[in-house]
Amino acid sequence: MDSFSIIAVASIITAGLTIAIGSVGPALGEGRAVSQALSAIAQQPDASSTITRTLFVGLAMIESVAIYCFVVSMILIFANPFWEFAKTAAGN
Amino acid sequence: MDSFSIIAVASIITAGLTIAIGSVGPALGEGRAVSQALSAIAQQPDASSTITRTLFVGLAMIESVAIYCFVVSMILIFANPFWEFAKTAAGN
Amino acid sequence: MDSFSIIAVASIITAGLTIAIGSVGPALGEGRAVSQALSAIAQQPDASSTITRTLFVGLAMIESVAIYCFVVSMILIFANPFWEFAKTAAGN
Amino acid sequence: MDSFSIIAVASIITAGLTIAIGSVGPALGEGRAVSQALSAIAQQPDASSTITRTLFVGLAMIESVAIYCFVVSMILIFANPFWEFAKTAAGN
Amino acid sequence: MDSFSIIAVASIITAGLTIAIGSVGPALGEGRAVSQALSAIAQQPDASSTITRTLFVGLAMIESVAIYCFVVSMILIFANPFWEFAKTAAGN
Amino acid sequence: MDSFSIIAVASIITAGLTIAIGSVGPALGEGRAVSQALSAIAQQPDASSTITRTLFVGLAMIESVAIYCFVVSMILIFANPFWEFAKTAAGN
Amino acid sequence: MDSFSIIAVASIITAGLTIAIGSVGPALGEGRAVSQALSAIAQQPDASSTITRTLFVGLAMIESVAIYCFVVSMILIFANPFWEFAKTAAGN
Amino acid sequence: MDSFSIIAVASIITAGLTIAIGSVGPALGEGRAVSQALSAIAQQPDASSTITRTLFVGLAMIESVAIYCFVVSMILIFANPFWEFAKTAAGN
Amino acid sequence: MDSFSIIAVASIITAGLTIAIGSVGPALGEGRAVSQALSAIAQQPDASSTITRTLFVGLAMIESVAIYCFVVSMILIFANPFWEFAKTAAGN
Amino acid sequence: MDSFSIIAVASIITAGLTIAIGSVGPALGEGRAVSQALSAIAQQPDASSTITRTLFVGLAMIESVAIYCFVVSMILIFANPFWEFAKTAAGN
Amino acid sequence: MDSFSIIAVASIITAGLTIAIGSVGPALGEGRAVSQALSAIAQQPDASSTITRTLFVGLAMIESVAIYCFVVSMILIFANPFWEFAKTAAGN
Amino acid sequence: MDSFSIIAVASIITAGLTIAIGSVGPALGEGRAVSQALSAIAQQPDASSTITRTLFVGLAMIESVAIYCFVVSMILIFANPFWEFAKTAAGN
Amino acid sequence: MDSFSIIAVASIITAGLTIAIGSVGPALGEGRAVSQALSAIAQQPDASSTITRTLFVGLAMIESVAIYCFVVSMILIFANPFWEFAKTAAGN
Amino acid sequence: MDSFSIIAVASIITAGLTIAIGSVGPALGEGRAVSQALSAIAQQPDASSTITRTLFVGLAMIESVAIYCFVVSMILIFANPFWEFAKTAAGN
Repeated sequence: MDSFSIIAVASIITAGLTIAIGSVGPALGEGRAVSQALSAIAQQPDASSTITRTLFVGLAMIESVAIYCFVVSMILIFANPFWEFAKTAAGN
Repeated sequence: MDSFSIIAVASIITAGLTIAIGSVGPALGEGRAVSQALSAIAQQPDASSTITRTLFVGLAMIESVAIYCFVVSMILIFANPFWEFAKTAAGN
Repeated sequence: MDSFSIIAVASIITAGLTIAIGSVGPALGEGRAVSQALSAIAQQPDASSTITRTLFVGLAMIESVAIYCFVVSMILIFANPFWEFAKTAAGN
Repeated sequence: MDSFSIIAVASIITAGLTIAIGSVGPALGEGRAVSQALSAIAQQPDASSTITRTLFVGLAMIESVAIYCFVVSMILIFANPFWEFAKTAAGN
Repeated sequence: MDSFSIIAVASIITAGLTIAIGSVGPALGEGRAVSQALSAIAQQPDASSTITRTLFVGLAMIESVAIYCFVVSMILIFANPFWEFAKTAAGN
Repeated sequence: MDSFSIIAVASIITAGLTIAIGSVGPALGEGRAVSQALSAIAQQPDASSTITRTLFVGLAMIESVAIYCFVVSMILIFANPFWEFAKTAAGN
Repeated sequence: MDSFSIIAVASIITAGLTIAIGSVGPALGEGRAVSQALSAIAQQPDASSTITRTLFVGLAMIESVAIYCFVVSMILIFANPFWEFAKTAAGN
Repeated sequence: MDSFSIIAVASIITAGLTIAIGSVGPALGEGRAVSQALSAIAQQPDASSTITRTLFVGLAMIESVAIYCFVVSMILIFANPFWEFAKTAAGN
Repeated sequence: MDSFSIIAVASIITAGLTIAIGSVGPALGEGRAVSQALSAIAQQPDASSTITRTLFVGLAMIESVAIYCFVVSMILIFANPFWEFAKTAAGN
Repeated sequence: MDSFSIIAVASIITAGLTIAIGSVGPALGEGRAVSQALSAIAQQPDASSTITRTLFVGLAMIESVAIYCFVVSMILIFANPFWEFAKTAAGN
Repeated sequence: MDSFSIIAVASIITAGLTIAIGSVGPALGEGRAVSQALSAIAQQPDASSTITRTLFVGLAMIESVAIYCFVVSMILIFANPFWEFAKTAAGN
Repeated sequence: MDSFSIIAVASIITAGLTIAIGSVGPALGEGRAVSQALSAIAQQPDASSTITRTLFVGLAMIESVAIYCFVVSMILIFANPFWEFAKTAAGN
Repeated sequence: MDSFSIIAVASIITAGLTIAIGSVGPALGEGRAVSQALSAIAQQPDASSTITRTLFVGLAMIESVAIYCFVVSMILIFANPFWEFAKTAAGN
Repeated sequence: MDSFSIIAVASIITAGLTIAIGSVGPALGEGRAVSQALSAIAQQPDASSTITRTLFVGLAMIESVAIYCFVVSMILIFANPFWEFAKTAAGN
């Protein structure tokens, strides 16, 4: 059962680190975008609807990168093909 | 019981590090967004309702990244499929 | 008792590092938010009530990230399911 | 089955780290581009259509780098030639 | 007595590192907040009471993060459940 | 089959890290170029066609660096001469 | 006497590193606060009493973080419960 | 065949890391040059032909550094004298 | 005499690193404070007595952090309780 | 043949890392020089011939540093005296 | 004589690293203080005597931190109590 | 022949790293000097001969540091006294 | 002769690293001081004698830190008490 | 001959790293000094002789730090007392 548990350990550690490291960039990037949006609204209140719309599109783009990480993390925990194979192999 | 405890150790360490590392980015990003919101309100008090609304949407987006990390951390502690499997296997 | 103590060691180290690393981001983020709030009040004293209100909401959001870390740290010390299981297993 | 599981472990860890590390650069880059776009709109609202168009082309370029990482990560999990070969070899 | 001393060593090292690493963020954050408060008072002496009040609330919020670390550090030294358990187990 | 699997592992890890590390620089560089382009358009809308043209040439140059990394990563996964040789050697 | 000396070594190393790492943040934070105080006095000499008072409160808050580290360091050297226990155990 | 595969592994890892690390500098340098070119065109549209010409010469110089890395990386994969020698030695 | 010398080695290394790492923060903090004091005097020569007084109080606070490190370093070399105990134990 | 292959491995790894690490500095330095040249031309188009001439001399100086690295890298791959000696020794 | 030489090695390495690491902070801090002093003299030549006096007091404070490191380094080389003890023990 | 090849390996790795690490500083320093020279020429075209002369002397000084590294690197490859001695010793 | 050579190795490595690491801080600090001196002279040529005098005193202070490192480095090579003792011990 | 070659290896590696690491600081410091000198000349061409003279004295001071490293590096290669001793000892 050794090769079995080493796959489990690798999946656990990788799933956690993937979303942990992957959250740093998007969070900082979104923080920058939001903070600049607020500054832009303060400077030009009349353009706030354009600014808000552009901000949301941008946030969606940045969030998508975080979601890639979350998807990989979830795949590694709940739909890990290597783990499925190892379980099947162990079941034989 | 060796493979059993190594999965536990990996889950514990990963759960902690995931939320620990994952908190750095969102906290800094939110700090930046909030600080800029305050600066924007000071500069343009009349737009404070628009600013506050945009800030809250932005904070929610950034917080969502931290919550991804928290969710993965909680899954690893309380609903860890690898651990469940190992417990079941050990119970046999 | 070997697998028993390695879970304890992992829990101790992770509990400490989680709150230690997890405190860096929120503390810096809050410091930035607070410092900008003071600057904003100095610039626009009339808006100080709006600024203070927004600041407190923001601080609560940032603090929540630190509290996630603290919660995980406390769970690992006082309500660790892996440790409970190991103690039960050792009691058999 | 040892060489079998070491390939699985390497694939899992690499798939996670690839998208995790690969998300930092694009997220920061997009955050910078979006934040500057908002600033530019605030400064010159009349040019907002040109700015938005240029922003979207730029974001697509930057996102493409993140997608390279995501593609490599997915290939390593679901279409890994080394793993296929090892499974075939193990099947013999 | 081996598993006994390894828990002690882990507790000692973690207790020290927790407060050591955990002091960096709050100290820098408070330094920033205080320095900006002084700058704000110099700029707007009339608002010094509002500034000081807001500063103290902010410092309390930041200090709370350092105190989380200190609490975990003290728990690990003086009220460590793993150590208590190990002492009890060793006493049997 | 040991030397066989170690080449596979090295290829997997290197392929992932190559595109992961190689994405940081281009993404940041493109983010900077795009953000400055938007700022330039806002400052001088009349020159937007020259700016856009120069931006696209520049982005192509920067993207080429990311593509070098992607090419090396793909070669290592799908056209790895060392792996081909090892498979042939193993087939004998 | 092996488990005995490893606790001593861990205590020595941790005691030193705790105060060493723990001094970086407070020293930089205090340096920032003091330097801004001087700048504020130069800008608004009339408010120097308010500035000085706020500075001292702030320095006390920051110093408290350094003192947490110093206290933990002293506890580890002179009132280390793990060491006391080990000495008692060794005395038996 | 051991010394054979270790040369293959070293070549694979080095080829990937060479272009990965080697892409960071050129990408950032080109990003800076392009972004400043756009800023310069916006500031002085009349000099755009001189600026563009100088930019392309500069980009070529910077790209040459990335190409050195790519050349070394390709040599290590497809024209590696150490590998050729090892294959010949193994063929004997 | 093995456990004897390992305590000596740990004390030597820790004593050196404690003061070495512990000197970075205070030196930079004092440098900042002094440099700002000089700037403040140049800006407002009339307030130089207040500035100098505040500077000295501040330097004393920062220096105190360095002195904590120096004290711990000296204790580890000349009044190390673990070493005394080990010498006594070895003397028996 | 062991000492033979270890020299090959060291040469491969060093050749790659030399040019990889050695490309970071020159690429950033050239990027800075080029970007400032463009800014200078925009500011003073009349001096563009002097600026361009000085830029090329400067780029040549900086490129020379990258070429040192490339030369060492090529020597290690194609004219490595240690490898020649080892081959000769192995040929005997 | 093994425990003898390991103490010597630890003393040598620590003595060197202590002054090496300990020189970074003071040198940078003094450089900052001196550079600001020169700037202050250029801005307010009439206050140069006050500036110079304050500078020298400040430099002395910063230098004292470097001297702590130098003292510890010299103690470890020439008046190392652990070494003296080991020599005495070896002499018996 | 073991001590023979380890000297060769150390020489190869050190020669590469020496020039690789040693190129970072000079390249960045020269990039800064050149970029400032261009800025200075743009600001004061009349002084361009003095600026160019000073620039070249400065570049020569900085380049000299890179040349120290290159010299050491070449000595280690082509005139390594330790290697000569080892070859002579091996020839006996 | 083993303990003999390990002391030699430690002395060699430490001597080199001490002056290498110890040169970073002073060189950067002096560079800053010199560059600011030049700026100050350009701003206030009349005060150039005071500036130069203060600069030289400051450079001497900073250089002294580098000289501490050089002295320790020379002591370790040419007047190393541990080495002398080991040679004497080996001579017996 | 083992202790013989390990001294050679340590000397080679240290000699290279000493000048490599030791070149970073001086090169950056000189780059800063030169770049500021050029800026100062552009700002005040009349003071160019004073500026140049001060620059050369400053560069000499900074270069001296690099030369310390070069001297240590040369001593380790060509006049290494530990190596001489080991050769003499081996000659006996």
